[in-house]
Amino acid sequence: MRKLLKGVHQFQMNYFSSHREFFEQLSQGQHPRILFITCCDSRIDPNLITQTEPGELFIIRNVGNIVPPFGVHANAEAAAIEYAIDVLDIKEIVVCGHSHCGAISGLLKGNRLSDHLPSVHAWLRYAESTRRVVLENYQELKGEELLSAAIEEHVLIQIENLRTYPSVHAKLYGGQLNIHAWVYKIETGGIIVYSAERCNMRAEHESRFTEPRLDELETDDDSDNHHLDRNSVSAPLAVE
Amino acid sequence: MRKLLKGVHQFQMNYFSSHREFFEQLSQGQHPRILFITCCDSRIDPNLITQTEPGELFIIRNVGNIVPPFGVHANAEAAAIEYAIDVLDIKEIVVCGHSHCGAISGLLKGNRLSDHLPSVHAWLRYAESTRRVVLENYQELKGEELLSAAIEEHVLIQIENLRTYPSVHAKLYGGQLNIHAWVYKIETGGIIVYSAERCNMRAEHESRFTEPRLDELETDDDSDNHHLDRNSVSAPLAVE
Amino acid sequence: MRKLLKGVHQFQMNYFSSHREFFEQLSQGQHPRILFITCCDSRIDPNLITQTEPGELFIIRNVGNIVPPFGVHANAEAAAIEYAIDVLDIKEIVVCGHSHCGAISGLLKGNRLSDHLPSVHAWLRYAESTRRVVLENYQELKGEELLSAAIEEHVLIQIENLRTYPSVHAKLYGGQLNIHAWVYKIETGGIIVYSAERCNMRAEHESRFTEPRLDELETDDDSDNHHLDRNSVSAPLAVE
Amino acid sequence: MRKLLKGVHQFQMNYFSSHREFFEQLSQGQHPRILFITCCDSRIDPNLITQTEPGELFIIRNVGNIVPPFGVHANAEAAAIEYAIDVLDIKEIVVCGHSHCGAISGLLKGNRLSDHLPSVHAWLRYAESTRRVVLENYQELKGEELLSAAIEEHVLIQIENLRTYPSVHAKLYGGQLNIHAWVYKIETGGIIVYSAERCNMRAEHESRFTEPRLDELETDDDSDNHHLDRNSVSAPLAVE
Amino acid sequence: MRKLLKGVHQFQMNYFSSHREFFEQLSQGQHPRILFITCCDSRIDPNLITQTEPGELFIIRNVGNIVPPFGVHANAEAAAIEYAIDVLDIKEIVVCGHSHCGAISGLLKGNRLSDHLPSVHAWLRYAESTRRVVLENYQELKGEELLSAAIEEHVLIQIENLRTYPSVHAKLYGGQLNIHAWVYKIETGGIIVYSAERCNMRAEHESRFTEPRLDELETDDDSDNHHLDRNSVSAPLAVE
Amino acid sequence: MRKLLKGVHQFQMNYFSSHREFFEQLSQGQHPRILFITCCDSRIDPNLITQTEPGELFIIRNVGNIVPPFGVHANAEAAAIEYAIDVLDIKEIVVCGHSHCGAISGLLKGNRLSDHLPSVHAWLRYAESTRRVVLENYQELKGEELLSAAIEEHVLIQIENLRTYPSVHAKLYGGQLNIHAWVYKIETGGIIVYSAERCNMRAEHESRFTEPRLDELETDDDSDNHHLDRNSVSAPLAVE
Repeated sequence: MRKLLKGVHQFQMNYFSSHREFFEQLSQGQHPRILFITCCDSRIDPNLITQTEPGELFIIRNVGNIVPPFGVHANAEAAAIEYAIDVLDIKEIVVCGHSHCGAISGLLKGNRLSDHLPSVHAWLRYAESTRRVVLENYQELKGEELLSAAIEEHVLIQIENLRTYPSVHAKLYGGQLNIHAWVYKIETGGIIVYSAERCNMRAEHESRFTEPRLDELETDDDSDNHHLDRNSVSAPLAVE
Repeated sequence: MRKLLKGVHQFQMNYFSSHREFFEQLSQGQHPRILFITCCDSRIDPNLITQTEPGELFIIRNVGNIVPPFGVHANAEAAAIEYAIDVLDIKEIVVCGHSHCGAISGLLKGNRLSDHLPSVHAWLRYAESTRRVVLENYQELKGEELLSAAIEEHVLIQIENLRTYPSVHAKLYGGQLNIHAWVYKIETGGIIVYSAERCNMRAEHESRFTEPRLDELETDDDSDNHHLDRNSVSAPLAVE
Repeated sequence: MRKLLKGVHQFQMNYFSSHREFFEQLSQGQHPRILFITCCDSRIDPNLITQTEPGELFIIRNVGNIVPPFGVHANAEAAAIEYAIDVLDIKEIVVCGHSHCGAISGLLKGNRLSDHLPSVHAWLRYAESTRRVVLENYQELKGEELLSAAIEEHVLIQIENLRTYPSVHAKLYGGQLNIHAWVYKIETGGIIVYSAERCNMRAEHESRFTEPRLDELETDDDSDNHHLDRNSVSAPLAVE
Repeated sequence: MRKLLKGVHQFQMNYFSSHREFFEQLSQGQHPRILFITCCDSRIDPNLITQTEPGELFIIRNVGNIVPPFGVHANAEAAAIEYAIDVLDIKEIVVCGHSHCGAISGLLKGNRLSDHLPSVHAWLRYAESTRRVVLENYQELKGEELLSAAIEEHVLIQIENLRTYPSVHAKLYGGQLNIHAWVYKIETGGIIVYSAERCNMRAEHESRFTEPRLDELETDDDSDNHHLDRNSVSAPLAVE
Repeated sequence: MRKLLKGVHQFQMNYFSSHREFFEQLSQGQHPRILFITCCDSRIDPNLITQTEPGELFIIRNVGNIVPPFGVHANAEAAAIEYAIDVLDIKEIVVCGHSHCGAISGLLKGNRLSDHLPSVHAWLRYAESTRRVVLENYQELKGEELLSAAIEEHVLIQIENLRTYPSVHAKLYGGQLNIHAWVYKIETGGIIVYSAERCNMRAEHESRFTEPRLDELETDDDSDNHHLDRNSVSAPLAVE
Repeated sequence: MRKLLKGVHQFQMNYFSSHREFFEQLSQGQHPRILFITCCDSRIDPNLITQTEPGELFIIRNVGNIVPPFGVHANAEAAAIEYAIDVLDIKEIVVCGHSHCGAISGLLKGNRLSDHLPSVHAWLRYAESTRRVVLENYQELKGEELLSAAIEEHVLIQIENLRTYPSVHAKLYGGQLNIHAWVYKIETGGIIVYSAERCNMRAEHESRFTEPRLDELETDDDSDNHHLDRNSVSAPLAVE
C-alpha cells in the first residue's frame, strides 16, 4: 500500500497539478463517448492501450469480460449498460477480451471449478456458449491454441449477448449504436477488431450481388468468422 | 471509433514498442498485489491516479463501486473477489468511490428511478444502506453536501459488505488481508483514505498499551469515522 | 368438460382406432424434426396450420412465445431447448408469433399491468426489447398497426435470444441448426417467414429493392430489415 | 422445413379456405373455456385428442407438464395461469401427462443429468416430489412399471401445485374453477382422468358432523388413493 | 438487556440447576416429535401454550408463519422442513397462526407496503393466495372480522403449501406424516385445530366406486369447507 | 399430537386462566423490546432461558440461526428484521447460537450434503464464511472442539451480516440499536455474550481516554475476539 499511496502522491504532484483546470472541468460532469467492457485482468489498462484521457471511456470490468444475456435480476452489467445508453447517451460499445485470459481458461475446465471456486464457477455459467462452441468445433486444438480460439469466440458471443439488452437493441435498431469486439494481445500489443455492424453489412452486400470470393466470406458476418483460420481472420481489420 | 483506433496505433508505436520485453513478460502471467474496486465513471483512471503499471491492479468496475453483500447467486463481484483472493492470492483490497458520483446521486432519488431505469434501480437496491444512513442521519444536509456525505458513507459500507464474502472473511481473520476505503476527489485530485484493517489492529493495539494520539484516533475504526465531523475526518490520512 | 370428454371419446372411436399401429409405433419413442415455439393463444393449432402428424413437432407454448435470454435459473424454456437439441438432436427451430397477440398488446401497456397482473408483468419483462424497439422506432404508428409492428419485431428478437443458449449457439456455429421466425396471421391464414440462417441474406435483399449505394452500406446492418414496409417485407417468402 | 412449408400451403388451400369466416371471427378475439397444460412431447396433439377447434384450448407446453409451485420469480407458467384465469376468465384446467414421458424418465435418473443436461436438471428440480414419492413408495417397481407409476403420481402432484397459485386458489375457493389431471396413454389412446374437485369437500363435511371413528383415523390420509392398484384407480373415470 | 441477562441468571439459578441431568442428557442430541411453524410475534410462546419441555418442538418462526411453496432457491423454510423430516424423522407438523397477526394485516394492505417496507412486502408475496381468497370471497367483512377470516384461511393455505415439499409429500404419501393447522387466539387462549389428513381419502374412496351424482358434482370443491361459519368450523376439534 | 393437545388443555386450565387479563391486554398489540434470532433446535426455549413473558421477545428461528447477508430477494430474515426495526422500533438484537448445533456440524461436512439434503445444503451456503474461517484457522482442532470453535465464530459472523441490512445499519449508525451475539451451552446452561455494540463504543471510548482493564479488553471488539484463546474469550462476560 505504501507504494500505492506514493503513486497517488506522485500523481498529485505531477499529472494533476499540471492539469488542474482539466480536472476542475471534469468534476462538472462526464460525457464519455464509449462504453468499454473488459476483464479485471491487471495487465489491461484501457486508457493506456487506447491513449485516452479521463472522461473518455465508461468502463465495466468483470472476470472474463462477460456480458450475461439480459434477464438476470439486479446484475451489475445490466445497470451499467442501461446507464451508459439511457443516461449518458453513449453510441459506441467495445467488448475487449485479451490473450492468456485466466477466466476463459478456467471456463474450459468446466465443473472442476465448482468445489473450490463456487462463485467463479457460477459466474462462468454465463459464458457456457463459449465453452460449448470450442468443445464442439475445435476438437483439433489443444492448450494455448484452444485457449486463443475460445478467447476470440468469446468476445464475438458477448457482442451478441449485448444485443439482448432492451436499450442496446432499440438503439442498434435505430442505427444509433455501434458494437465492436476486440481481442487485445498482451504480448504483441496487437488488437483484433471485429465490428458487428460492418461485418454483417459486408456479408449481406456480397451475398447479394456477387458470387462472394472465399477470402471475403472469411469476414462475412460474425457467425461466418467462426469458420476461418483464426490468424487470417481479422488480418484486414487488425491493428498491429 | 476512429480516434480510439488511432489511439491504439499510437500506443503500439510509442509505449508498447518501448516496453516490448515488459509486455512479453506480462504475457507469462499476472501477479497483481491489489484488488481495486471502483466505479464505471469515465473520469476515474485507477492506473493514472495510483501511477501503477499494467500488472499491478486487478480491477472491478461497476456502477457506484458497489459490493453487494455475499449470497446473491452468480454475481460478477463474488466471482472477481473469489478469484482475486483464492486464485491470485491478493492481500490488499481498495474500494474507491469518487466525488460527484452519478450512481449515488441516483440512489438518493430512490424509487423515482424504477420506471425509466429499471436495471439501474434494481442494482442500486444493494446500496440501500447508504441511502438509509444519510436520510436518517444527515437531515441537515442538502444537494452537494448530502451527496458528499453519501459518497463517503457508501465506501465505508462497501468495505463492510466485503467482509461478508467467505474468502475475504477467512483471510481477514487470519490477518492476511487488508481492506481500504478511498474517496477520490476529482476536482482536487485528493484521496481520502479509510483503512479498515489497519485501524482494527491499531484500535486493539492502542486501546491496550498506549494513550493514542488524536490524529491517529481519527481513523481508529470505521464505525468511529461516522461520529466525526466529515470535514476533519480523514484530514490526517488524506493525501492532498 | 363434458364436451372435452366427449371429444376424447370421438378421438378414440375414430381417429385412434383407424391409426392403432401408428400410435403403437409412436409409443416406442419420439423423433421430432422441429422445435416449434409458439404462444398459449387458443387460436393457434401448430399441427393444424402445418398439417403435421403427432410425432413431428416438439412444442413449447408460453404467453407471447417468448424466449428469455439464456441465464435465468431453472426456466422452462431453457430445459426444453436443451432437451430438443442435446437429447432429440433437433436441427430446425421455429418461433411462431401471431396476429392480435394479447401478450404483446399487454406488453405495450408497460407497468400498468404490474398491480393486477403481477406474474404476467414479470414475465413480459423478458420481452422488454420488443417494447423499446417499437416505442422508439414506430412513433408514427398507433393501435392495430403498432401492435402488428411489435408482433413482427418480437419474433425477430426471440430468434436472437435463442442464439444466447449454449446448445443453440454451438450447433448454429457448426451449421447444424436453422432458426426460423414466423408470424401467423389468424385472419388470412398467412404466415410471414423470416429465416435467420438464410435470411440475413434474403430478408436483407428484399428489404432493399435498390442497388445499395456505398453510403447506405455504412449503416447496413441486420436490424435493417426492420426498417422495411412490413407488408412487403417477406412477401416473396410469405406463404399466403 | 420444405415439408413444413408445404403443410402450411395445404392448410391454406384446404382447411383455411373452407373456414374463412370462422378464422375471421377468431381474429376478433379468443374465448377459450379450458387451460390445457401438457408436455412438449411431439406425440401429443391436444386439439386432436380432444377433437377441439382452434379457440377452445389455451395451452401451456413445457418439458414434463410441470407446474412449478407458485413463488418462483418471473416464470412462464405463473404468467400463463394468471392470464388464463384473471384475463380470460377460464374455469377449467387440465394437466395432461402421458405415457413414456422422457422428462419423467430423466427425473428418475436424478443428479446424473446435472453435468450434460444442466438446464433440464435444474428444471426437473420442480418435480422432485414425484421422484421422492416413487422412490420411497414403489421400491417394488422397476423400468416401465416404475415410470408409469411416476407419470401418474406426477400429474396428481401438479394439480396440487396449481392450488398454490393465488388466482387458482381464490377461484377454487369460490367454486368457480375445476382442476383435472389426465394421463394420456399414447399406445391405447386411453386417458385416465383424476378430478381434484370431487374429493375434499365430502371429507371436510364428515369431519365436521361426526366424531371420526378411530379406524377411520388410522387410514385417514389423502395419499391413500395412491395405494390403490393403479389400473383400477380411475377405471370408472377412465375413458378407454 | 440488563433484564434479559438477569433472566438468564435466574434461569441458571433456578430452572437449570434443578434440571442439570435433563439438560446434560439433552446435550447428547435432540429427538423432537413435532415441527412447529409459527409467527415471530412476541406474544406466542410455543412451549408455553403446549406445555412442552425443551427437546420436544423443532421450531420455525418467521413473519406471518408463512410456508413459501417449494421451489424458491436456498430459503430458510425449505432447509428446516427438509432437516426436520429427513434428518430428525419428525412425523407431525403444526402450522400455528394467531389472532391479531400484524403480518396478515399488512398483507391486506397490498402494494401500499412496497415503498417503506420493501422486504416485508416481497416476503408477503408468498402469502398472496391468502389475500386473494379473502378479497374475492369475504367482501362482506371489514376490519377485525376480515382479519380473522384471513388469518384462518392463511393457515389452511400454508398446510397446502407444505404439501409441495418433496420430503413432506413423500411421507404424507406413505402415511408417515400428519399436518395440522392451528389458529391460536391470544385473547381466549383457544386454539382452532384443522387436521389436513382426515379429509381427502374418503372422497377419493367414494369417487371410485360410485357414479357421482350431478348435484354432488356441482358443489364439489374443497374450498367449500371455507364457506362454513368460521366459528362452528372446527368446533368439534377446537380446544377451548 | 394427543400429548400436544393435552398440553394446550393444561395451558388453558392453568396458566391462561390465571393470566386472563394479561393475555387480554396482549391481544391489544405487541411491544417487544428485543429481536431474538436463534436456531430451530428443539432444545432451545428462548423464553425459558431468558425467563421472559409472552410479548417480550420477537423471535426468528431458522436452521443454524443464520442471518443471510442483505440482498437475497424475498427472504424471511430480511422481512423479520425490517419489521422488527421499522415497524416495532426494536432497539436490541440478540443472535443466539448453541452448543452441539446440527446445522453447523452439517456445514463442516461441506458438499457432502448436496445430494441427500439439497435444501439444507443450499441454505448453509449463507454460512460459508463460518466454514472457511474454521477450516483455514483452526487446523489444529478436531471433532467437538472444531464444532465449538465454529459455533462461536458463526454467531460473530452473523452479527456482522446483520450490519448489511439497511435498517440495521442506519440505526446502528445513529446509535439507536445494539447487537449482541450469544452462545447458549445446553449442558451447562451457560451463555457466552459478545456485545458488538458496546464493544465498538467501548473500544473507541477506551482507546481514547483510559487505559482499558484487561477483562474489558477481552470483548473489546469482535475482530478482537478472534485473536483470543477461545476458552478465555468470554469468561468475563459469560453468565455461568
